Parts: sequence; C-alpha cells; structure tokens
Amino acid sequence: MSCFQVRTDLALEARESIGKAEEELRGVAVEEYDREEIQVHITKVVISSKNGAKAMNKPMGSYITLEAPAMQEADEDYHREISEELAGQIRSIIPGAETEQSILVVGLGNRDVTADALGPGVVDNLLVTRHIVREYGKAAYNKERMNMVSGIVPGVMAATGMEAAEIVRGVVDQTEPDLVIVVDALAARSTKRLNRTIQVTDTGIQPGSGVGNHRNALTKDSLGVPVIAIGVPTVVDAATIVGDAISKMESETGEQMRMFRPDRIRTMTELNNMYVTGKNIDEIIKRLSYTISEALNIAFEL
Amino acid sequence: MSCFQVRTDLALEARESIGKAEEELRGVAVEEYDREEIQVHITKVVISSKNGAKAMNKPMGSYITLEAPAMQEADEDYHREISEELAGQIRSIIPGAETEQSILVVGLGNRDVTADALGPGVVDNLLVTRHIVREYGKAAYNKERMNMVSGIVPGVMAATGMEAAEIVRGVVDQTEPDLVIVVDALAARSTKRLNRTIQVTDTGIQPGSGVGNHRNALTKDSLGVPVIAIGVPTVVDAATIVGDAISKMESETGEQMRMFRPDRIRTMTELNNMYVTGKNIDEIIKRLSYTISEALNIAFEL
Amino acid sequence: MSCFQVRTDLALEARESIGKAEEELRGVAVEEYDREEIQVHITKVVISSKNGAKAMNKPMGSYITLEAPAMQEADEDYHREISEELAGQIRSIIPGAETEQSILVVGLGNRDVTADALGPGVVDNLLVTRHIVREYGKAAYNKERMNMVSGIVPGVMAATGMEAAEIVRGVVDQTEPDLVIVVDALAARSTKRLNRTIQVTDTGIQPGSGVGNHRNALTKDSLGVPVIAIGVPTVVDAATIVGDAISKMESETGEQMRMFRPDRIRTMTELNNMYVTGKNIDEIIKRLSYTISEALNIAFEL
Amino acid sequence: MSCFQVRTDLALEARESIGKAEEELRGVAVEEYDREEIQVHITKVVISSKNGAKAMNKPMGSYITLEAPAMQEADEDYHREISEELAGQIRSIIPGAETEQSILVVGLGNRDVTADALGPGVVDNLLVTRHIVREYGKAAYNKERMNMVSGIVPGVMAATGMEAAEIVRGVVDQTEPDLVIVVDALAARSTKRLNRTIQVTDTGIQPGSGVGNHRNALTKDSLGVPVIAIGVPTVVDAATIVGDAISKMESETGEQMRMFRPDRIRTMTELNNMYVTGKNIDEIIKRLSYTISEALNIAFEL
Repeated sequence: MSCFQVRTDLALEARESIGKAEEELRGVAVEEYDREEIQVHITKVVISSKNGAKAMNKPMGSYITLEAPAMQEADEDYHREISEELAGQIRSIIPGAETEQSILVVGLGNRDVTADALGPGVVDNLLVTRHIVREYGKAAYNKERMNMVSGIVPGVMAATGMEAAEIVRGVVDQTEPDLVIVVDALAARSTKRLNRTIQVTDTGIQPGSGVGNHRNALTKDSLGVPVIAIGVPTVVDAATIVGDAISKMESETGEQMRMFRPDRIRTMTELNNMYVTGKNIDEIIKRLSYTISEALNIAFEL
Repeated sequence: MSCFQVRTDLALEARESIGKAEEELRGVAVEEYDREEIQVHITKVVISSKNGAKAMNKPMGSYITLEAPAMQEADEDYHREISEELAGQIRSIIPGAETEQSILVVGLGNRDVTADALGPGVVDNLLVTRHIVREYGKAAYNKERMNMVSGIVPGVMAATGMEAAEIVRGVVDQTEPDLVIVVDALAARSTKRLNRTIQVTDTGIQPGSGVGNHRNALTKDSLGVPVIAIGVPTVVDAATIVGDAISKMESETGEQMRMFRPDRIRTMTELNNMYVTGKNIDEIIKRLSYTISEALNIAFEL
Repeated sequence: MSCFQVRTDLALEARESIGKAEEELRGVAVEEYDREEIQVHITKVVISSKNGAKAMNKPMGSYITLEAPAMQEADEDYHREISEELAGQIRSIIPGAETEQSILVVGLGNRDVTADALGPGVVDNLLVTRHIVREYGKAAYNKERMNMVSGIVPGVMAATGMEAAEIVRGVVDQTEPDLVIVVDALAARSTKRLNRTIQVTDTGIQPGSGVGNHRNALTKDSLGVPVIAIGVPTVVDAATIVGDAISKMESETGEQMRMFRPDRIRTMTELNNMYVTGKNIDEIIKRLSYTISEALNIAFEL
Repeated sequence: MSCFQVRTDLALEARESIGKAEEELRGVAVEEYDREEIQVHITKVVISSKNGAKAMNKPMGSYITLEAPAMQEADEDYHREISEELAGQIRSIIPGAETEQSILVVGLGNRDVTADALGPGVVDNLLVTRHIVREYGKAAYNKERMNMVSGIVPGVMAATGMEAAEIVRGVVDQTEPDLVIVVDALAARSTKRLNRTIQVTDTGIQPGSGVGNHRNALTKDSLGVPVIAIGVPTVVDAATIVGDAISKMESETGEQMRMFRPDRIRTMTELNNMYVTGKNIDEIIKRLSYTISEALNIAFEL
C-alpha cells in the first residue's frame, strides 16, 4: 500500500513545525486565503531554495493545499464547487495548461483496502480520451483542441511483484505522455487533516519522505516528464496518533510526561504497521474519488 | 459497521481483568489447553451464574477461543487444520449437532470496508444447500442426511436504513431455521489479539456490550432459536490503543502518568469513531473468511 | 439470477403481438406520446379487464414505458433529464405520493453478473433515510415532511439458499413499509429494446411470466402493500434471439423456413440457460443504475 | 474487452474444418489422448509449416487443448487434478522450464464484465514472488531455486485509453522477464466448448485472428521474449450462434435454408457487438480462475 510504505507528509504540516521568521529567511514563501463562498481555505507554499527544502524536509517546488471540511459530508453533486476550485489550482501548475497535450493519470494504492483505494477510484471515474482521439480524431468530440487523457492503476507490490514505479516508468516510456499526474492516499500527522485536505504539488511522489529510497520515486527526474501529485490524507500512522494524544493530554492537563517520538512508541508497543482511519471511510473515499476525478476532467478541458 | 457500533469484547480479555480466585467463586469455569500439533491454544470459559456474568460483564454461556498465530500468515490450503479444529469446536456447542437441521448463517459487517468485511466474506464462501434440498431432495447430494444451510448478508444501516437485526428477524420468521450462526468482525482491546483469535459463543450478539440497546441483539431471546456467534477481532478502537500505549509506557519506564480511560481520551482528542487496523488487512480478511467458511462447511456435514 | 429465472416480458412487447381492434375490445387502453425535448417516447398501457389481461398475458394494472435511446450513451450528469421524467412517472403511480410514507426499495439480481447487477446498483446509489429519521427526526434534514426510505439487496438463491421473495417478505413484515419498489434487470424479446427501455408498473413482479410459480411473486397479494416494479431489459434469451434472427431473415430474403419457437430451438440446440448481452454492458449498467436511483431520490422528495 | 475485440478461435475448432488428409499433407501434426482417471481429453496440434498455418488460419506453433467437462461443476478443491494436469502441459512448452527464470503473468480482460474477468481473476490468485526474492533472496522461501513471478492486469482500453499491449510492452521493457504468460477469456465458435476447454499455446496472442492488426499482438516478435497464451472460451459471438443454430436445424430437419455466414447475419440483424454466455457465469469464472492460477503456481515450482 503506497500510502503506508511511504511516509508522505503534507507540506502544510511540515510548515507548522518551523517558525515564520525562518520561513522568510530560508526561501519558503507562503500565501494563504479563503474562498469563503465555497468554504475552502487555500495555502500555497513555494520552496525555492535548498535551505528551504532542508528546513521543510521537502523537495523544492510548489505545494497547494485546499482545506475543505465540507468534503467529509455527503453532497448531491459530489461537491462540484470544490472540484471546480481544485481544477483551477491544478491548471495553475500544469506546465502549458493551454496547450494540447497527452496526460497520464496514475492511481496509486490498493483497490482492496478501503482507505487506500483513493487513487484507483479516481482513475475509475476519469474521462479517458486518448484511444478515441487516436482512432477517430478530435472530431469524435466535436472539438478543435483536445488533450489525450489516459489512466492506469498499477496495483500494489504484494499483488504484482513489481514496484508501482517500474510499471509507471514502462508505461511512460511506451506511451510518451507530456505530463504525469499521480493520485494517492496520504498519511497525515494528525486526525484533524483527515479526508478534508487535498494537496497538489509539482514535485511528484518522493518515497520515504524524500529520504532514501529513490527506486520508488515518481518525479520528473525518474520519469523524464513533469509529474504533478495530488494527495488526500486518509490515514494516520498509529504510533503517530499515540504520540499526538500524549502531547495533547500533556498540554491540557499540565501534567508532564516524557515525550515519546513515534519511532520509540513503535518499538515499545505493537503499533508498527498499524494505521488509524475513520469508520465511514468507504463513503468518504467514494465521494473524494469523484470530487478529484471531476476536478481532473474539468482541468483537462481546453 | 457492526463491529464498530458494538463494542464486542472477547471473553478472554474480560477474564484477564478478574482474579483467579474470583473466577472460581463466581461460577466462571475456565479450561485451557494447547493443540500443539496445529499450534492452536484453546480457552473455554463457561459463565454459569449471574454473579459470574456480572463480574465478566458478559452474559451467561460458553465462550470458546482459538488463538492461532499462524492465521496471520499465508497458507496454501487456507489453514485447513485450523478450519477442522474450529469445526469441531463449533459442533461442540451446536444443539443437536448430529440431527438434521436448518441453519441460517448471517454475515454481519460492511463489504466495502476491508476490516469489516469478514462476515460477508464467510457467507460468500459458504456452501448453501437449502434451496437444492428443498427442490431436489437430499438425493441431489447422494446423502441420506443433510443439513439445510442458508446464508444472508444483511448489510449496514447506513446503506439499508434498517438495523441488521430487523432484517435477520424477518428472514428467521419467514424461513424458520433451527439455528442461527452469526459471523462478525470484532473490536479487541489490544493489538496482540488482532486477526489471530477466533471466539465462538452460544450467547449470540450483544450490542453495546450487553448493556442497553436490545433493539440490535441477535440472541435466542430476540430470534427465538439458538444463536451461535463467531467473531474475530480485526480492529482496535483508536482511543483504547492510546490508553494501552500509555499504560505500557508507564510500566516500562516506571514514569507515572495520570491514567486515562478510553472515554476520557476520546473526548480529549479527536479519536472518536476512529479505529486502528493492520496494513495488509485485505489479504488477512480474505484468508480468515475462507478459514471460517470452510470450518462451517465441515461442521455442517452429517 | 432473477432476470433469467423469470421470463419478464415488457408489456410493450406483449402489446405488439395483438391487434389494435383487439386492444379496445378487451379493455386495454394505450396512450403514447413523445417528450421531444428530452428524446423520450412514453407509452402507457392500462389493462383494466380480465380479458385484457388474458390477451396480453399480463396481470391487470398500469405499465408505463420510457424509451430513451440516449441512455445507452455516456453523459456527464448521468442523463438527469431522464431521471426527472422517470421520477414524474413513478410518482404518478405511487399511491398517495404526496403523503409521508415509508418506502422499501428492493434491488433484485446478482451483483456478480454484470448484466444482472442493475437492482443492486440502484440500491447502492439510493439515498436511504429511514434510520436517520427514526433516530434524529426530520429535523436532521431540515424538512417538515420526509419519506422514510430503506433499501435491500436480497441476493440470489444460489448464494443465499433462499428465494428473494422469502427475504423480502420477512423484511416487509418486520419493517412495515407503506410501499415496496422492486428494481430488476429484465429479459427482452429483441435486442432493439436492450438498455434503452424502462418499464414502471404497479403490478409488481410476476415470476414465470405470470404463469405458475407464485412462490416467487413480489406483489400486493404476496407482500400486503402496493408493489411498484421498475425494470430495464439488459439481456435477451439466446434461443429467442435465434428465433428472431430466423424470422427476420425469412422476411428479408423471402425464403421460407419452418418457423421455430424458442422452446424448440432450446431443445434442439445447446442454448438453454444461455443469454445474449452487449459488450460494453459494464458501463451501461453503471449508468442505468445511477439514472434510476436518481429518479427514485427525486420521486421520494416531498 | 479483449476477448471480444479479438476473434480468438481455438486451434481445435480450426482443425475441425479441414480434412485429415490435408492435415498430414500440410505439416499439421495432431495427437490426441484421454487422461481417463481425471476425465480430461487432450489434443496437441503442432503446426510446423507455412502451408499448415495458412490452412488452419493460425500461426505456426504448438496448441494444447484440455477438454474437461468437470470444470463446469463445483468442486471442493477447485479441480486440483485438472490444475496438476494443466501445470504439466504448461511446463512442457515453457522454454527451459527447469531453469530459474523471471516470469510475468498478464491477465487480459475486463474485471467488471463477468465473462471477461478470467485473466484478472487468475492474476488475483497467483503467488507472486519477484518482490520477495529481490528483497530477501530465495532464503525467504527456504528454497535453493526459485522462479521470480510477477503479475499484471493491464485493464481495457475503454478504461485506460491505452492498448493492453502498450502497457505490457512497457512493463516487459522495465522488468525484463524471461517469459510472459498471457491469460485471456476467448470466444468459441459453439457453445459446446464453453467453460470446459483450456487452450495453451506458445504462439502468444494474435489480435484479429492473426490477420492484420499487429499493434495489439502479444507475441515473441512484439515483446522480445517467449509468450505462452492460456485461454478458455467463455462466450460465443451472438451472430455465430445464430448461424450455428441454423446449420444444426438444417441438418436435423433435412430442410434446406440458405446458409448465412456470421458476417451476413451480423449486418442483417442487430447482433453486432453482442455475445452469448451462460447464466451461472460468475461461479464458473471464479472456479476457472482458481484452477488456472493453481496450475501456474504448480508449474512455476522448481
């Protein structure tokens, strides 16, 4: 399960741990605003220096986060207003968004594990057009300009024996898209971000929090074309949640406990390879998948 | 999701919290042994008095627990040796197991949430025979004696608008089985029981830990026929795990924290309606479902 | 698989085989019109006498058919215009549609066989409200008047050992809805109706084309409350198609073949228990399910 | 849906249309025998000349067919005896079957269309080992010699926008297996082969009946490594079935009809893009998938 092998943190959370003065010093630009009419809070973090990347423990690039509490709730048209806002944000970091191009959408994760089925769900709902345009031309859509959209769900290593990155590299080499968009379920540091936060970044997917395992990277470096990653935190690492709960109780009670880092908690307890998720996660994933696939469908229209 | 609405504790865990002297005093008989050749540890708890029921916070009846760590691992024939042992234990508490009867197997839980899909998975793999025996007679199976087996997956209230118990009562009234067997994913108090423990009890399903909400009960009282419940803990309540982690760290570090009960943790933090489960839960549920359905298929042979 | 055990013909097709004079004589009233702006052709057949029922080989009652060729094609909002028209037609035969009531929607068919998964798909997308209204009142929806909607997928006899009708009767007895709506995939007599025709009738489901097997009936008689059936033909019996092809070739070639009835064809060939369906049936069923569930959601609003 | 875009005939059926004398003349060797103890009839057709390939309308190579009527019926251990026989036949045409190698299994077809879900089902049940051997070595399996097995379900063009062959070529280029095994649902010419016949061939997959469309080929030529194809006919083209029914009735009645070829029938009727399949196809596909994946698991053991 990609979201669990990889500790994919939100830039938003990384940023909370460094001070504002440090931000400016280090080449980390932050912009925040509310889209009140649709109740979405947007944060853009741009890391433009190596120092900034080091401070944030994130690669250089843009990170756009939409916080939309409404996403957790049912909605007749699957929160189309959020899809539209997200589409705009995605277009803002697609290189040459106005030009016709070929785009491959990759749905990472495990279709058989509810909290990890976001990526596959998005590809299921995606409007793929590449085969039609190639066979019948743009006329099939009565359009003069069309992107060619394709989609793949590479599956998880336990089921395929291959890393998702191997499969994606192969497909990129064969079909030569101009852009890859990767959708994945993420792990957050706290439950308060869960299922309500969408992160869009032009830095692709960095396995192992950018530390180490570059075999698995899905980035411009590894694929040869720009890679945009879209992620929603759907789980929290169980050890992290224990640590967070302890901190919270410390601050609320004033009582002092020795602070345990998740690593320590993991070894002391049996929480390794365990994660925390919500009880109505099936409905939430179904809705989130639809909201994001609609955003992509809108963003890909020319 | 039934396993999460209902705090279904294991009798095994309930028993750990009371002393041995108290056990004997109160009419709680415990028998334990190992089936070494198949690496299964069996515990039988019989609660025969109201005092015992109160001490254990469990209704009077028999609770058989198989602890089989091997179940967590892949196996070519889905741990047939465990299926056979489990079949024997199930038969030991089926009233009139040697007599032909009509048996309804109920698979509680939510097919769309991996950790809660155990019950539906068991019914999917079950050998149902009722319709064949009714239409063609036992001759269809070349047998002189046959049980008539039927199965139902009532679904979850969020999807049906009805309590599983309403649906099951209706089906029992219409089809008049002699026995109901309910299979469900349970919540354990600690991760060490997860996915390796099967509990079989003749007390049925007690919503709200037997306290209160009898609308949801699936018991001899509510259905009018004996009800055997088979459960496997596949999740731990997130607040429980935080509490457990704190206790463990206290005892390991010698450091004293104010002990928090799960209720307190739940209100102080955001862990309400959250649960903890393992990362390869899809494969585990697939295997467990097969092991239990095979056990039922074996137990139902005459 | 319900649609295949039961030879559910369309009233529309039954009517094509009798003359117009006979219609009037026998108490069969037919009304036809086009809703041009949404490209839907509507036919209402009302059978008001026993003679009419005999001539049509259908029980007395109303049969409304929407022919909507567009349904076979992809559409951004799942043909909402058809959902709205269908909602109106459904309301027109719901007894007391303006009154608050409790409605049970039954999704017949087999989730695991694509062409038969229409009923389950409709229930999956349905807005169920009964449990919320019962627990929190209509206030939960900010409404003064609400129907209480519940849904069930009884499954197929091969999987449950029970007839769908047994399960539905049990659920109706327990939950006492005022109205039952049954959704099912049908068998048509020719491929030209396939996946583009929706039939709504107040006569419920008549197993065995109304001839015989009343064990399986889902009607006002068998359930005690009004039953509306909604069906879409998604398959054609293979023997029927051979017979139809022969007739068509006879008339086109002028060549005379001895006309074979499907029964004869079935015994002469190996077409028993075989059916014909289209190649992109998965996408069609997904869309149809959504169109019908939306129609129900609209029809149930007060 | 791969099985329907591609008219994949069985060599067995191709052979029935040419005479025995012609066979010998043309370099088509046929061997037939019964494995009576397991009720399997085996036919090996070896086409060794271009003339033979032309007469058979099949590429040069070996075609092994197992006819096993029992496969249509339920069986406790999923017809392990057939899995074992099939494993032996597969090994007989794996180049260097005794040598350690890396094998990629490709499950063609559409997971969402029951009759076409054979390939995906086989990969789901497959024992994949490549990732374990690469990470932990053969020691993880306590073996000195191990094949490295991987599996992929490329999906259908309507869902991915890409040809399955593009995806497979990409994965082969990246992961460099020594051998590719492709599993697919086939179209047969008559219902009598349906779901009871397994064809194994070393010629790979030839789209468009080997005539023409080489974009889609999955062969040694297109992939650069040996390709073994395993197929089971699960559908019959609807127009073919009409033609067959007519022939059969002609011969049984002695009555003469003008014989129609499927092409003609297709244009005269509405049977284009329609197929015929059996009513319990879900259970059959589930069983067949398991029988074949077990055969592969056995064949891959060293």
